[in-house]
Amino acid sequence: MSDYSPPLADITFLLQHVTPIDELAKLDAYAEIDTDSVLAVIGEFGRLMTDVWAPTNAVGDAEGSHVEGDTVRTATGFKEAYAAYAEAGWGAVPFDVAYGGGGFPWLVGIVMQELLNSANMALAMAPLLTQGAIDAILHHGSEEQREKYLLKMVSGEWTGSMNLTEPDAGSDVGALRTKAVRQDDGTYRITGQKIFITFGEHSFTDNIIHLVLARTPDAPTGTKGISCFIVPKFLVHDDGSLGERNDVHVVSVEHKMGIKGSPTCVLAYGDNSDGAVGYLIGEENAGMRYMFTMMNNARLGVGAEALGVAERSYQKALGYTKERRQGYAPGAARGEKSFIVEHPDVRRQLLTMKAYVESMRALVYKVAEQIDVARHGADDVARTQAQEMVDLLIPLAKSYCTDVAETVTSIGISLHGGMGFIEETGAAQFYRDTKITQIYEGTNGIQAMDLVGRKLPMRAGGVLADQIGRMKATVEELAGAGDDLAPIHRELAAAVAALEETSNWILTNGLADPVQALSAATPFQRLFATTVCGWLMAQQALVAGRLVASGAADADVAAVKLVTARFFAEHLLPQVYGLVSPVTAGKDDLFALTADQL
Amino acid sequence: MSDYSPPLADITFLLQHVTPIDELAKLDAYAEIDTDSVLAVIGEFGRLMTDVWAPTNAVGDAEGSHVEGDTVRTATGFKEAYAAYAEAGWGAVPFDVAYGGGGFPWLVGIVMQELLNSANMALAMAPLLTQGAIDAILHHGSEEQREKYLLKMVSGEWTGSMNLTEPDAGSDVGALRTKAVRQDDGTYRITGQKIFITFGEHSFTDNIIHLVLARTPDAPTGTKGISCFIVPKFLVHDDGSLGERNDVHVVSVEHKMGIKGSPTCVLAYGDNSDGAVGYLIGEENAGMRYMFTMMNNARLGVGAEALGVAERSYQKALGYTKERRQGYAPGAARGEKSFIVEHPDVRRQLLTMKAYVESMRALVYKVAEQIDVARHGADDVARTQAQEMVDLLIPLAKSYCTDVAETVTSIGISLHGGMGFIEETGAAQFYRDTKITQIYEGTNGIQAMDLVGRKLPMRAGGVLADQIGRMKATVEELAGAGDDLAPIHRELAAAVAALEETSNWILTNGLADPVQALSAATPFQRLFATTVCGWLMAQQALVAGRLVASGAADADVAAVKLVTARFFAEHLLPQVYGLVSPVTAGKDDLFALTADQL
Repeated sequence: MSDYSPPLADITFLLQHVTPIDELAKLDAYAEIDTDSVLAVIGEFGRLMTDVWAPTNAVGDAEGSHVEGDTVRTATGFKEAYAAYAEAGWGAVPFDVAYGGGGFPWLVGIVMQELLNSANMALAMAPLLTQGAIDAILHHGSEEQREKYLLKMVSGEWTGSMNLTEPDAGSDVGALRTKAVRQDDGTYRITGQKIFITFGEHSFTDNIIHLVLARTPDAPTGTKGISCFIVPKFLVHDDGSLGERNDVHVVSVEHKMGIKGSPTCVLAYGDNSDGAVGYLIGEENAGMRYMFTMMNNARLGVGAEALGVAERSYQKALGYTKERRQGYAPGAARGEKSFIVEHPDVRRQLLTMKAYVESMRALVYKVAEQIDVARHGADDVARTQAQEMVDLLIPLAKSYCTDVAETVTSIGISLHGGMGFIEETGAAQFYRDTKITQIYEGTNGIQAMDLVGRKLPMRAGGVLADQIGRMKATVEELAGAGDDLAPIHRELAAAVAALEETSNWILTNGLADPVQALSAATPFQRLFATTVCGWLMAQQALVAGRLVASGAADADVAAVKLVTARFFAEHLLPQVYGLVSPVTAGKDDLFALTADQL
Repeated sequence: MSDYSPPLADITFLLQHVTPIDELAKLDAYAEIDTDSVLAVIGEFGRLMTDVWAPTNAVGDAEGSHVEGDTVRTATGFKEAYAAYAEAGWGAVPFDVAYGGGGFPWLVGIVMQELLNSANMALAMAPLLTQGAIDAILHHGSEEQREKYLLKMVSGEWTGSMNLTEPDAGSDVGALRTKAVRQDDGTYRITGQKIFITFGEHSFTDNIIHLVLARTPDAPTGTKGISCFIVPKFLVHDDGSLGERNDVHVVSVEHKMGIKGSPTCVLAYGDNSDGAVGYLIGEENAGMRYMFTMMNNARLGVGAEALGVAERSYQKALGYTKERRQGYAPGAARGEKSFIVEHPDVRRQLLTMKAYVESMRALVYKVAEQIDVARHGADDVARTQAQEMVDLLIPLAKSYCTDVAETVTSIGISLHGGMGFIEETGAAQFYRDTKITQIYEGTNGIQAMDLVGRKLPMRAGGVLADQIGRMKATVEELAGAGDDLAPIHRELAAAVAALEETSNWILTNGLADPVQALSAATPFQRLFATTVCGWLMAQQALVAGRLVASGAADADVAAVKLVTARFFAEHLLPQVYGLVSPVTAGKDDLFALTADQL
């Protein structure tokens, strides 16, 4: 029935050789884990995704979700699929054992996120947005709040939602106007309306913990006047039992191009009272700072969404091209027609999908691994270095994966020919679903501004220089690695040179005039991310070359990886050459016309 | 009410300076026309599109179309919009006066196609598919068939449809199995089923003329055994009045990702009889050859579809960015927030859309102009040269426009932020609609095979060499054209060099091994098309420079064009650098893996 199976070969390759679990297991925090147990966990989780989640994906797209009374009706099978996930405790895996978690690295959590999103991106948003809310309460909530809310969110008994956006406050979060008025008992009354709240209402669980950004009456303007509140759907008594229904209600759900199974809610606070009851997290006016601590995880999570959807799109297209016969491939004997996978241009498209997906996976896993090291590394130096790498790579992972997933899922449609455009085929959904990943959690343009405005200047360019240094070391290693890797050596060396040229341009010109940096930000971001992926693919090629030479047990997987890595280097990495001029052309042409001349 | 207005400034610029109507008017066939009257026609047509057609676009997307009894119910307003078009005789404009046409150049027809597709791509398919059927009957039908069917199709009183695809015969048309059996009276009985028939059924008109590809019992296999038949919905008496209902019926309409307003029909022939009555066009087994004569027009028409949708997507996004305030642009005074059009990265995205759209327009119009010269040029040499240019550029125009339209409409969504993903905003429809243009009328992979397999080898590379020669002449001209054009000179020269390198590679290696050419076909096609567009934008920049210098009446339009052309050269044209390696990497990596290793 299911047309999805987890890509365990590539996952295993990465967890053994590229972001090795064995290395993380050397850290005290992960002393209990090892590669085999992690792979067993992923294997078991994968079966749930294949058997229970994946079949609900098209159903969610077809049925969508609808407001029904005071709640939202989700698609057939969603509630049961969520329950199977929550009851088995899967949501707890990457969280601290102190709060009921499984104590696994975030890297393992990210692998699971990939699988969740392959199986059903729309449904995955219920547990994944909950992880964001958990993050906020874990780091900034009081001990009482953690006791009261966190345990049941970690266990999956309740979900969480993030309530940020308002009609005039999207990318410009600081413009939000939802009000929070402090009461004598220390609670707040929240009034206003928010939009774009994923799983803001549903009937999966008997409570929902909303995290709401709002402004107290005397708050400063802009982002410095934002506070963060816990607004539970049902108030929670001290003994943990549920009390009164809070005055937060769903107004409507959006009619979207994709992720139709996920209810995107408009929520109203305090329409029937003097306000929904809210509990301040941490201090007033610090809400934006708290959001920043969750931001890396949330943005990486969006990268994992794009990765998951792209992987499934690839599996679907590959399956079709191996079943569908049409015409004769060059050199094929007359008689039975050829499978379309044998046509050169179909091959090229499949390898493009495959190489892109593997590059996304390597990038997302690498950042997740560094998140673990940043938290639990052996010493300050290791932790700081890892955190810097995370900060630098997060905008790249978010933007690259989501932009590339568009290309991958688009090819996924095209490989089905005219049938790809017919909804029942199922290829189009991936394309429609993935588009939103470029936009939410900070548009890719915002990521680029973050990259050139905040990340390149870290340590006066020192963090960037470290990353370039790591990549140059790989270039060196490739130089002596033989003919098979020669094209990879050549292309990666050139890409790193292009990165140096453009980053120098931005650091020099952007310092004198920030508009120069902002004008160049997006093409630079793509250039940088593509180069980093070229580096990660090259590292894998080096490992693969050694495995093949030594006849290791996974030499067959490694042999495939060598081809994919070479394809990436020769076909995809060279895109960076076309991005140098857009970076260094400068701002002049962008502002040579008035808005009315556009 | 309408959010679309025809881009008359750019159209006028092209028709005056780049594909000048004045030049076409020197040909005998077009002696009656002049630029002013053409612009007047386009202006009037544009008002119909703005006022009547454009408002039906979102309606068609929301309502779709449905089988209702023996016909198809289309969306509210579609029938009336079609009637307004047909009754005014707009469909006749680019056809021969001998058959009731207006005698205008195909170029004018293509401008109208752009506007039709901007206004409502789904609805535009009714008249545009009719043009394809007209083409076939005009060139290959008997005088009697022309009298009987053509006049009413040209007038728009009846529509036409193209019936080619079957479930196992898509890109591989030769595999089709619909049967045609000759009767004693010279007619045929058609039995079988076809899919993907655009406007295969509707109630706009009281008859529909289907052109059906089928196979006679003794026909050779493959494309050499295909015949082409006229299968009218209602048989037509000799006096022109309608007779019996023919046994061709709609079975279902597809549920598609886009162009939902256009009924994509499954048609069955002969389910209730010994066959639908069909009339052979021309000779038996020559159907594929007849299709080839329509192919250039049809493929250029798909390019015009992509252009039209991209233009409207741009207009919508531009409007939004000029109305929507969010954050402060660099240097903006505090107080009222900035319009988002003032943010550098938004500017970059808008200019990307604008430059792409103008490059598509120039390419599509240039090919249309050459179609006119190929038909009516002053002498054999002029006609042959124009036909060669058409043949060479058709796969470029089809693939480039449809691929670039995906990028443009994707940006169009993103510029609306989260609202872009909400269907009611209207930006998503353009993205969903345009995706099919990459697939039908020969997938873009098929175009690439045509380019390297049939077009490059024309005159042993001579046709290609002529085109490269034209572009080099422009490079020469740019060399002395001053600082404003220096970046254009630099980038175009480099692009033409990349084109020479890669086309030499293909001509050399593809001769020895066609798989090499086929493996390189798609990246080469994009490289070639991007270079041709760089050349057309450069030509416009040269004209614009002269107009600005001379203070011409349209110097303001020209000044804007200078910026757009420079943006194209510095930001978009450099993509060609990234395509050299994918061309010259060769076939090895594509076939290094078995299908099961993918």
